[in-house]
Amino acid sequence: MRALRSSLLISASALALSPSTADVPIRGFFPQSVRAERDLEARFKSMPDPARMRAAMQRLTARPHHVGSPYDKENADWLLAEFKSYGFDAHIETFDVLFPTPVERVVELIAPTTYKASLEESALEIDPTSRQRSEQLPPYNAYSIDGDVTGPLVFVNRGVPDDYDELARRGISVKGAIVIAKYGGSWRGIKPKVAAEHGAVGCLIYSDPRDDGYGDGDVFPAGPMRPAQGAQRGSVMDLPVYPGDPLTPGVGATKEAKRLPIAQATTLTKIPVLPISYGDAQPLLAALGGPVVPASWRGGLPITYRLGGDAAKVHLRVRSEWGTRTLYNVIARLPGTTEADQWIIRGNHHDAWVNGAEDPISGLVAELEEARALGALAKQGWRPKRTIIYAAWDGEEPGLIGSTEWVETHAKELEAHAVAYLNSDTNGRGYLGVGGSHTLEKFMNGVARDVDDPETGARVWKRRQASLVLDGSADERRDARDREDLRLDALGSGSDYSSFIDHIGVASLNLGFGGEDPGGIYHSAYDDFYWYTHFSDTSFVYGRALAQTTGIAVLRLANADVLPFGFTNLAETVRGYVKELQALRETRAEQITERNRRIDDGVFKLTSDPRHPTTALPRQKPAPQLNFAPLLNALDSLTAVSTAYEKEYGRAVDEGRTTAARQVNERLIQAERALTSSQGLRSRSWYTHLLYAPGFYTGYGVKTVPGVREAIEQGEWPDADREIARAADAILREATLVGGLVTLLRG
Amino acid sequence: MRALRSSLLISASALALSPSTADVPIRGFFPQSVRAERDLEARFKSMPDPARMRAAMQRLTARPHHVGSPYDKENADWLLAEFKSYGFDAHIETFDVLFPTPVERVVELIAPTTYKASLEESALEIDPTSRQRSEQLPPYNAYSIDGDVTGPLVFVNRGVPDDYDELARRGISVKGAIVIAKYGGSWRGIKPKVAAEHGAVGCLIYSDPRDDGYGDGDVFPAGPMRPAQGAQRGSVMDLPVYPGDPLTPGVGATKEAKRLPIAQATTLTKIPVLPISYGDAQPLLAALGGPVVPASWRGGLPITYRLGGDAAKVHLRVRSEWGTRTLYNVIARLPGTTEADQWIIRGNHHDAWVNGAEDPISGLVAELEEARALGALAKQGWRPKRTIIYAAWDGEEPGLIGSTEWVETHAKELEAHAVAYLNSDTNGRGYLGVGGSHTLEKFMNGVARDVDDPETGARVWKRRQASLVLDGSADERRDARDREDLRLDALGSGSDYSSFIDHIGVASLNLGFGGEDPGGIYHSAYDDFYWYTHFSDTSFVYGRALAQTTGIAVLRLANADVLPFGFTNLAETVRGYVKELQALRETRAEQITERNRRIDDGVFKLTSDPRHPTTALPRQKPAPQLNFAPLLNALDSLTAVSTAYEKEYGRAVDEGRTTAARQVNERLIQAERALTSSQGLRSRSWYTHLLYAPGFYTGYGVKTVPGVREAIEQGEWPDADREIARAADAILREATLVGGLVTLLRG
Repeated sequence: MRALRSSLLISASALALSPSTADVPIRGFFPQSVRAERDLEARFKSMPDPARMRAAMQRLTARPHHVGSPYDKENADWLLAEFKSYGFDAHIETFDVLFPTPVERVVELIAPTTYKASLEESALEIDPTSRQRSEQLPPYNAYSIDGDVTGPLVFVNRGVPDDYDELARRGISVKGAIVIAKYGGSWRGIKPKVAAEHGAVGCLIYSDPRDDGYGDGDVFPAGPMRPAQGAQRGSVMDLPVYPGDPLTPGVGATKEAKRLPIAQATTLTKIPVLPISYGDAQPLLAALGGPVVPASWRGGLPITYRLGGDAAKVHLRVRSEWGTRTLYNVIARLPGTTEADQWIIRGNHHDAWVNGAEDPISGLVAELEEARALGALAKQGWRPKRTIIYAAWDGEEPGLIGSTEWVETHAKELEAHAVAYLNSDTNGRGYLGVGGSHTLEKFMNGVARDVDDPETGARVWKRRQASLVLDGSADERRDARDREDLRLDALGSGSDYSSFIDHIGVASLNLGFGGEDPGGIYHSAYDDFYWYTHFSDTSFVYGRALAQTTGIAVLRLANADVLPFGFTNLAETVRGYVKELQALRETRAEQITERNRRIDDGVFKLTSDPRHPTTALPRQKPAPQLNFAPLLNALDSLTAVSTAYEKEYGRAVDEGRTTAARQVNERLIQAERALTSSQGLRSRSWYTHLLYAPGFYTGYGVKTVPGVREAIEQGEWPDADREIARAADAILREATLVGGLVTLLRG
Repeated sequence: MRALRSSLLISASALALSPSTADVPIRGFFPQSVRAERDLEARFKSMPDPARMRAAMQRLTARPHHVGSPYDKENADWLLAEFKSYGFDAHIETFDVLFPTPVERVVELIAPTTYKASLEESALEIDPTSRQRSEQLPPYNAYSIDGDVTGPLVFVNRGVPDDYDELARRGISVKGAIVIAKYGGSWRGIKPKVAAEHGAVGCLIYSDPRDDGYGDGDVFPAGPMRPAQGAQRGSVMDLPVYPGDPLTPGVGATKEAKRLPIAQATTLTKIPVLPISYGDAQPLLAALGGPVVPASWRGGLPITYRLGGDAAKVHLRVRSEWGTRTLYNVIARLPGTTEADQWIIRGNHHDAWVNGAEDPISGLVAELEEARALGALAKQGWRPKRTIIYAAWDGEEPGLIGSTEWVETHAKELEAHAVAYLNSDTNGRGYLGVGGSHTLEKFMNGVARDVDDPETGARVWKRRQASLVLDGSADERRDARDREDLRLDALGSGSDYSSFIDHIGVASLNLGFGGEDPGGIYHSAYDDFYWYTHFSDTSFVYGRALAQTTGIAVLRLANADVLPFGFTNLAETVRGYVKELQALRETRAEQITERNRRIDDGVFKLTSDPRHPTTALPRQKPAPQLNFAPLLNALDSLTAVSTAYEKEYGRAVDEGRTTAARQVNERLIQAERALTSSQGLRSRSWYTHLLYAPGFYTGYGVKTVPGVREAIEQGEWPDADREIARAADAILREATLVGGLVTLLRG
């Protein structure tokens, strides 16, 4: 619905003047191509079928289908047959990867009283698949090392670095202790990592009922929330170092790949870790002595939360079978015509922790319906300009392994041919959420303006805007109203886009609906067909909306005359990041000054309660000023050429300049690559994108301009200046590329 | 420790140059008077005795001593004898007031299941006074009307006006319903008042364990927090309209006073109300259907909190015996010498809801030790210049009745003679907190700089400063460090200072230590000697610190050559209030504009989830601009004359000008009165102070410049401009008075 060209000049309200929907411009399409594309999209949108999604979910979730399970392979075979039946050229590509499965799991309180944790999720009469005990992986954290440890128990809140500062203030050390952390506040793998950094010997992670248990609604099966015995499985591999098979960093885990010995795999945990339910956590937490926790640390159990560290002792034993399992990625291709060497890649994983209806099948069934519709259009005679590849990844749950190994194996081809990667994973009722490359922000806003929300009939763009106005911060509200495009979230990690964008610099999008239904079955045996069809997108209308949204994005990318990348939004967004970084330095500097001043003024001594003594944290070195000028100069250049490009691009589209378009497209494929560096990030070279990465201490949560941001956060000031220069170089590379496009289009 | 004169010019660090402690100036004392006063204070400080405080607490809390109980009268008689034994001229002054006591109390869930609330606090073997069932008042809310109602139950969070907006957004009405509200967030009496305004027919108030139950520590008797059957008694009289006997507003409830019929008493509730424990609340809350509450409304019970309004039905019956009870105020006088007509009044109540060790005896035992020490000094030959009156009030708990009736009875004398009123109530370990008239801020800072904290040995001023640096907002931290004086809190209501400052404009201070020990026995049968001596100021060293702090304040006020009032801090503080009011208008205007814009843009419709529909709140009229100029002009005048006064006052003190001092003192007594208006506040004429009042919808919480602030908050814009003018007039009266003092001192 947006005017394609001159988009910076025409306001949204001017669109009321547009002659008819069929002729409303589409970003990237010559005027003479628009009507055909709109006709195609109208046909496409009518095809995704909620009833088929429901049936596919029931089929795919009928049995547990984790990596290495029989049903994982059966699903892959079924998916292969489906894609073939749609008319795709499909095959299964396998990898052999390290995947530990639990053999022994023990958690027991041994003092001052005793309690042996059940570590099991109850089978429920009403929910048939919850009873498939023999095929289920029990609750465990994959890639925890084996261990048998005993120690005092310490409650560490979310288990992030700041929490350990609070403990230190209260004189509590975790050296030699087993920590118990609440899920949430960081990706789970961060918790054992930070605990080990502080000297803990073991780690328990539990799901507090305040977060996803009875706090937010009735528990399953009466409601959607986590019951007392529900536990969250999940990987604790050190993803922020590298994802994928721990034994083959940077290369595909093919049969012939050279593998590290397990002992040299740096992404395994340093201490044993297990996830437990709040049913099992309550007796442990209730046994804790020591100071009462800070108010913000409390959860929803009917107990006094204490820090522990003294009387309560726990024994933890974890042992896994460290075997190799085969992953089955299903890869389906719809070949392009004139631009067959340019690939549009679309993926969703198919493996689950147990039956996995929401995660990942709710996204996969939408993907299947997209593929079926594209196949049907192809059978009706349409062919995409560019090659479309649909993927159903295996091994996402243990560590994004299927997609990572595939990307590592095909890195060279992908760097040459991949235009964009579109990902989905879980899907539910509510609002469209999109994260991704800001070079695609304008494009994606155009797509969201052309899809209807099933509940309100409004465009999904409009509904998303309304939610930002209602619940957003002041800045988000202002942007939602006044900025031409809604912002894309920057991508961190946690699904299969990671290798594409973070490792090889392929422009990526991650799409899904959600926000209306709470749930507490994540990575449990209760994430199944019964749960999904009672408490989530029960009529699969948001499954259809996801298929329509993602499918249209795929269609447009595949058919565009000029690839719809834009750079003005990227420049503006990164300028915002730099403002954040400048503010972050100021905040850190003020915090350090304030802390040192408090030490000097005796504030900590004066406020220490003799009944509950506290100690001052150590002094810190004052923060130096940083030189942001190189990055700001680079952004000035990028802003200038981006604006010029937007104008020249609009003119070229208007004039339907086919030859120029072809030259531009070839170079645009490299635009995201320009933002990467082959040396990678500080101390984690697998991550090459200099603008987006999962945080070293957040795991899934993104850190934008990560080299700079994490250097500031961690007080590594000399690194910060160096990283500013590296980020500036990346922006300059992008500006040079875009400047070249401008010259080409003017020439 | 503070330089008395030129205090605006000399920084704190300059004090290191002072010759010796004995000669350090004291605000209000001629140079030649300082050494004698410091000697006197040193003797005074050594007298308060923790062992005597402990013994007095044990005596006074040995049995329940609520209004009308035998032990209330016995305590009064004992206090009378004590004051007499200290050498005071003491008597008991009685009033006869309406005081309802419960006859019938029923709370029962009648659908969808049944539950009958116990409404009793368990007697505990370990805690002897908890077993005095026959003398205890059971949990109830005094001045709830009688009623027998049945209706659907609705959870209303804290029961303040904003909470009803949230309910309305979710389509839930309380018309004909019984509401259940959490204690906290407002004074309890506001909850039935607002509930009735919205059409509710009954009100339950419960103590959520997140607030003062197991959330913050072990429950009594293992720890200090509220156990499952603990309930908070308390008055629900409409205090913000007028406190004291409901039948004698504005006049003393003497034998001969004209009394309203009960039906015409406007401060009784409009609907029946009862307090319940979380043990009794849990079955009711667990029975609620309807939407899940907003996340910030959740408490600490292990249930899903829901709004209700449909299936769950409750029956509530309350009936009281509406009798007249006699109050016994103990009034003890130490006559002044040269300025006997100037009165320094000090008070603490003696009545309790049950045994009341913390509330109010922890404060009263400090007051007793002050009085004993003053009496001892008198026996050694010292006499105060001014008359000192020590009061032990009765009937504070039902509605500040003893002090209110006394003030109303003696209003004329007090207006002529009262210099200041100093109040305490509960006391505990931690930090000195002081609220009061800002004309005494500089004075009180001087006192706090001269008393040692028992735990750290630092001055209580220094420790309070450190706590503001540690836990304060950015503004509070900056003030604590850079401002010469720590700020006094403005006084709302909730203890016996209210009539003095709010009704007749006597400069007041409210003092107490606290902040280190949590507790959950407020207004329960467990607030007793066992609890206090296990979990609070167990060694009574903070009792001694309170006696030292308040006693020195009394001594200085009684002995000062020039009364130590100052006006620069007042002017600066009120200027801060005006900035707040201007910001409040902006915020309200933006909120109204934002709400209307959301309605116009369809934001509420677009974000309504069909499974959990919400509706837009009604449009509001845009906020007009307000004219703050009169108030700002008045403040400019006050600032100018206050600065001049500080200079002239310093000079007069330095020069020891006795005659001028006497003339100044006579006028200074009227300085707080100048800030009142005999017409009182909008719609509640009992409250005459134009700068401080308890909020109409907060109850205890202060509203500064209340006429203006509440008009803005309630959107009564024409009133706001009128109230600005009235506040400006008060400030101008003050400026005129201070200007007169300057002229007098210069002349």
